[in-house]
Amino acid sequence: MGRLAIIAGTGALPGLLAARHPALIVQLAGVDCAVTGAGVIAARLEHLGRLFADLRAASVTDLCLAGAMRRASFDIALLDPETTALLPRIVAAQGRGDDALLREVVAIFESEGFALRGAHELRPDLLAPEGVLAGQGAPPADAARATAVLDALGPLDVGQAAVAAKGQLLGVETLQGTDAMLRFVAETAPGSGGVLVKRAKTGQDLRVDMPAIGPETVALAAQAGLSGIVVQANRVLLLDPEAVVAAARARELSLWAVP
Amino acid sequence: MGRLAIIAGTGALPGLLAARHPALIVQLAGVDCAVTGAGVIAARLEHLGRLFADLRAASVTDLCLAGAMRRASFDIALLDPETTALLPRIVAAQGRGDDALLREVVAIFESEGFALRGAHELRPDLLAPEGVLAGQGAPPADAARATAVLDALGPLDVGQAAVAAKGQLLGVETLQGTDAMLRFVAETAPGSGGVLVKRAKTGQDLRVDMPAIGPETVALAAQAGLSGIVVQANRVLLLDPEAVVAAARARELSLWAVP
Repeated sequence: MGRLAIIAGTGALPGLLAARHPALIVQLAGVDCAVTGAGVIAARLEHLGRLFADLRAASVTDLCLAGAMRRASFDIALLDPETTALLPRIVAAQGRGDDALLREVVAIFESEGFALRGAHELRPDLLAPEGVLAGQGAPPADAARATAVLDALGPLDVGQAAVAAKGQLLGVETLQGTDAMLRFVAETAPGSGGVLVKRAKTGQDLRVDMPAIGPETVALAAQAGLSGIVVQANRVLLLDPEAVVAAARARELSLWAVP
Repeated sequence: MGRLAIIAGTGALPGLLAARHPALIVQLAGVDCAVTGAGVIAARLEHLGRLFADLRAASVTDLCLAGAMRRASFDIALLDPETTALLPRIVAAQGRGDDALLREVVAIFESEGFALRGAHELRPDLLAPEGVLAGQGAPPADAARATAVLDALGPLDVGQAAVAAKGQLLGVETLQGTDAMLRFVAETAPGSGGVLVKRAKTGQDLRVDMPAIGPETVALAAQAGLSGIVVQANRVLLLDPEAVVAAARARELSLWAVP
């Protein structure tokens, strides 16, 4: 692998990657990025031409998209010529679902000669290993119900997470993300004792929008009155594993990673 | 049709039915029923034996379940012998999804000799007729996206409603209902300009849990910043049609009923 740049979204992942791999950090306008310092450059999605030039000037060969970027600003009035030329591809992709746009952005970077690296390739130690990670026993029947819902939605490029309790569906992740869904469940169905299931979508490109949970996910699940969390083994990142497991134990939530 | 009893859930539907058909109204403990007066009897789900006897004493032959009953209380300590005997059927159904329990309750009433009538049979004038009911033009592409999501979830007995905007999914109805979903969208994705789609689930027994929208649904959709509502023609009730259309026009929301 050559010189790495991390296009940094919100959350802990960009920092966890940078802690292990020397990298240029790209901070997009409008994205609340927690990494700061000398190795951080500012960029705009409207100025892809300048971003490509900046990356080449820094001898970057490899790119990693890490963390949520859904609130990146995009003002059509600011477009540079390179981005204007790419606009038809971006707009067409935007209408095809959560992941289609990210896949198109990846394709654009690849056609500029950059190699895309998944966060899980850079930090395989963050992948949830199969097994009972906190608590005991097997996942409850509600996990199968939530998983069936995610399986049905995956082909539509929708849904990494769902909550079920007592055979009933209480939440389905939409564009607003897992945390927003858990807050909804906490407000509308408190104390349900249900289970959160988080998995990669069928056919999801794991190099972008890798599913992840952190200690805050565990805290929100506990606030929503859930009894456990089921993640997909080797396809969901724990940010970071020790903190997530400790948070689950502290709140007496079970945590399973299943195939 | 013989003598009718309406098992009355929340919302306007029980009153709209009773306004056209003389009926005994059954008010379940824990359900906030808006109909009051001389023709109302109180009942408990735990005392089905007594309810069957009360209905027969009033010469009731036909039953209609109308309105949402999800908060009906059910305390296992209060069960009468008849209900205790039915408990295995009720518990088994409860684990199989939103509609399975209602279908089992219907089967139980039918096996007691009562005929189940759908609200749409009693008030076909409340069914949304196909066409542009408010606004103009055709439903936006987002309606197809939300409909595809509902089609995928229907076989799982989940989801009568979804919200999509700009190709992205913003809300999926879960047990908490359409209004809770719209409040979630209003809080987490205000001003999206999206569309609400409400349809019967694939294979749904329209005699129970008939999809319906009222003026409040329109008001909540407007608060969520949506631009339109698409309902399934002849399978969604408007409570009542004039008020729903007037609410949509007043808020400049489009309202379509499509096959």
